[in-house]
Amino acid sequence: MFESAEIEHHIDRATYKAEVPALRTALLQAQYALLQQAQRALVVLINGVDGAGRSETVNTLNAWLDPRHIRTEAFDVMTEEDYRRPEMWRYWQVLPPKGQMAILFGSWYTDPIVSRVYGRDDADRFARRLERIRHFERMLVAEGVVLVKFWFHLPKKAARARLKALAADPRTAWRIGPREKAHLKRYDDFIVASDEALRKTSQPEAPWHVIDGRDEAYRNLAAGRYLLSMLQSAVQSPPPAAAATPVAAAEPAPPLDGKTLLQALDYGQRVSRERYERLLERWQGRLNALSRDARMRERSLVVVFEGMDAAGKGSTIRRLVAAWDARYYRVVPIAAPNENERAQPYLWRFWRYIPAHGRAVVFDRSWYGRVLVERVEGFCSLADWMRAYDEINAYEEQLTEAGVIVAKFWLAITPDEQLRRFRERETTPYKQHKITPEDWRNREKWPQYERAVQDMVDRTSTRVAPWHVVASDDKLWMRVQVLKTLCRYVQRQLDRRD
Amino acid sequence: MFESAEIEHHIDRATYKAEVPALRTALLQAQYALLQQAQRALVVLINGVDGAGRSETVNTLNAWLDPRHIRTEAFDVMTEEDYRRPEMWRYWQVLPPKGQMAILFGSWYTDPIVSRVYGRDDADRFARRLERIRHFERMLVAEGVVLVKFWFHLPKKAARARLKALAADPRTAWRIGPREKAHLKRYDDFIVASDEALRKTSQPEAPWHVIDGRDEAYRNLAAGRYLLSMLQSAVQSPPPAAAATPVAAAEPAPPLDGKTLLQALDYGQRVSRERYERLLERWQGRLNALSRDARMRERSLVVVFEGMDAAGKGSTIRRLVAAWDARYYRVVPIAAPNENERAQPYLWRFWRYIPAHGRAVVFDRSWYGRVLVERVEGFCSLADWMRAYDEINAYEEQLTEAGVIVAKFWLAITPDEQLRRFRERETTPYKQHKITPEDWRNREKWPQYERAVQDMVDRTSTRVAPWHVVASDDKLWMRVQVLKTLCRYVQRQLDRRD
Repeated sequence: MFESAEIEHHIDRATYKAEVPALRTALLQAQYALLQQAQRALVVLINGVDGAGRSETVNTLNAWLDPRHIRTEAFDVMTEEDYRRPEMWRYWQVLPPKGQMAILFGSWYTDPIVSRVYGRDDADRFARRLERIRHFERMLVAEGVVLVKFWFHLPKKAARARLKALAADPRTAWRIGPREKAHLKRYDDFIVASDEALRKTSQPEAPWHVIDGRDEAYRNLAAGRYLLSMLQSAVQSPPPAAAATPVAAAEPAPPLDGKTLLQALDYGQRVSRERYERLLERWQGRLNALSRDARMRERSLVVVFEGMDAAGKGSTIRRLVAAWDARYYRVVPIAAPNENERAQPYLWRFWRYIPAHGRAVVFDRSWYGRVLVERVEGFCSLADWMRAYDEINAYEEQLTEAGVIVAKFWLAITPDEQLRRFRERETTPYKQHKITPEDWRNREKWPQYERAVQDMVDRTSTRVAPWHVVASDDKLWMRVQVLKTLCRYVQRQLDRRD
Repeated sequence: MFESAEIEHHIDRATYKAEVPALRTALLQAQYALLQQAQRALVVLINGVDGAGRSETVNTLNAWLDPRHIRTEAFDVMTEEDYRRPEMWRYWQVLPPKGQMAILFGSWYTDPIVSRVYGRDDADRFARRLERIRHFERMLVAEGVVLVKFWFHLPKKAARARLKALAADPRTAWRIGPREKAHLKRYDDFIVASDEALRKTSQPEAPWHVIDGRDEAYRNLAAGRYLLSMLQSAVQSPPPAAAATPVAAAEPAPPLDGKTLLQALDYGQRVSRERYERLLERWQGRLNALSRDARMRERSLVVVFEGMDAAGKGSTIRRLVAAWDARYYRVVPIAAPNENERAQPYLWRFWRYIPAHGRAVVFDRSWYGRVLVERVEGFCSLADWMRAYDEINAYEEQLTEAGVIVAKFWLAITPDEQLRRFRERETTPYKQHKITPEDWRNREKWPQYERAVQDMVDRTSTRVAPWHVVASDDKLWMRVQVLKTLCRYVQRQLDRRD
């Protein structure tokens, strides 16, 4: 992968001086066009061999572009603190909104490569982490992010000479510590691991650009020119939604005999008020004990509630969190995305709320909006919600692998019961704020929602994060059921990891 | 993943009888439209739980469609014979050409799932095999193949009852052996592994369709209807070449200072005729010994020659194979694809020649035509050759993992030397057949080819299958160099595996 960067490249001073002004002007123009269009974000990854000029390139690019619209972040190998959340969490935090840029010095490649070189990860784990990166980058590109992946290379001899020179110069000696020296000793191992990383992640949507790092003028000009071409192509490309899937109608077929999951539920189950009070207290007690279980310090909890309007999500969440210390949990209600959120990949706003170990988050509606309301209302394209199942499964797998327990509830009511509750809301003064014309409009789309729920459960109820579908016509029975199911599910997940 | 197939579905006899005739007519019409267009192939995968009606469905589909345009194949777990070639080889053999269909009873999912259930593969290896399948299916779809992936499900109770019924009936008792009984005992493990397989391979381009297998009428109608919708969408979709990449110009940038890999070579190396004869004999002897090395019985050898016109590929191959027993090797010259080959994914015609263990194949030009002549001449789109690097790397990785040694040579000559050889061909009577107007036309595109070679080496020279670029202005020196390099490379690969 590094063949042409092994040839020594060079640009003479005069050429460099002559070329830079025009390049800078063009870069700024392209950056502003990106900003004005606000249709795509651009992320620059700066990776490569120690001493190959990565840090200098970051500074140069920030000098040539307008740094007010660039977020520059450095990433190193993961620390203990980083391990309290899923690996990709920290990268989600720095994704630029549409129109903006980010320059990442070190990236999601750094830790996998270093961990492989130092033997912390075996070949299989390394391959899996690279596969996760492929998946992540494909998702970013599908969401309209342009990836510019730089790899700055130095041949072995040059790497050794460069380290010596840096160590000898009092102005730069601080940059060479025991770590840099250890890295150099493993130069060959680094090349083997990097070769595999670059090979497996050079997708057509996100290719690598390898640059010989020896000559500063060559390096800067090569990086600047490539970045310019990617910026210009980002500005000229059609908006991401216009990209089509290879085969049109992969939309899931409706059940042939009309029998859906929701219709097959038993909605007749009831519990008396008296028994409810007793059971509620029991399961709340159990839930409280679980939140203080020592093993929960290494785990976190995400509870998702979805359901038709008036299914009882809000009141159930209130009973649930009543079991917990206020410092332990957070309730996140999800409405239509705001402007900031629309400028990001759709999973972005959910990544933000992922709890650290020892904490819980309850979502009142969630990322499943993509395959429910956005699908039914046509807020996103068929291709978008079809790929969302896959992306959601990958997302939840990442959460669970990082120790998050993901419990998902669909509160299922019948159309008749919904009608009864709507009417009650209209006639009860303190409930009138809870019913809007939109609720009535959604109700008319009941069959479409029912199909969407069916497809959602079929495609995202997995061993890793199963759906719990609970009949909710009787609110009391449903609440007990939810608390009991949650307790048992959390218990099972804790036991499994031991 | 199996939620809605756990609900018992049913179609009554009268409805079935009323619906089937129209469905059959529509299926045949769609099949013939596919055939006439000859733009896409369609592959049906039949997978699922034992006794869920997979075999019956294969028969029904063959009865409803015109079986003359369908290739039906059954695949079971891999046998020792299968392990003599890369895993995916046997599936490449049965891919239907454009316009045709294939029905695969059992598929590339069967062996990974069974191997996982019986503990032959650990979790990491299972995940890697699923990832390979994702990659394979994405490639198929990009090449215009439509995938119809059926999973026939039976709940545990129904699976047990069905097995009992089959065993009790003398007409079907033969279908239930110790294997089927062992599978049933591991029903839960099968569901866990299948859940992971379906979840990780439900890509938007190739979704799974899960069908409740209990009721024959429901099963047939559900499968037939879904197949019909996919056939119709295959016919209505635009040809695959029209599908665009999300971001336009990801084309690799040319080297900034104009210094290419090929120009950096030392073309001045020479060897005397006398020394050449001696060295040739030595390395041919070495190559012969290697072909008879006991370890080669578990390995196979693929040698690839690429180079500009008149670089000396043919004459070098003759010297190379002179070292071998005629039963050991095969030389495969690659020209422009014929009609049959154009009706298949571009890697198809190369998969066909992959040698079994203990054999060698020498390619005179190869799959690299995709990123050389097809790129330069515009025979395929930018998106096509850009994704080819990734597909070729995955292909070669599969070969090497299956024990194939892949040695790739680029024979590099200078433009001056090519001109000298062209002139010599024109003036030497017995060489005149070797020079055509096309050779002169290609020569005019030298700079484009040089860029294509540079990108090819940068993107496909990997630890798994590196490129050997050999200066070839002196034919004698080059031949010795090729034989020596090949011997040493094969030797290293044999030693590495021990």
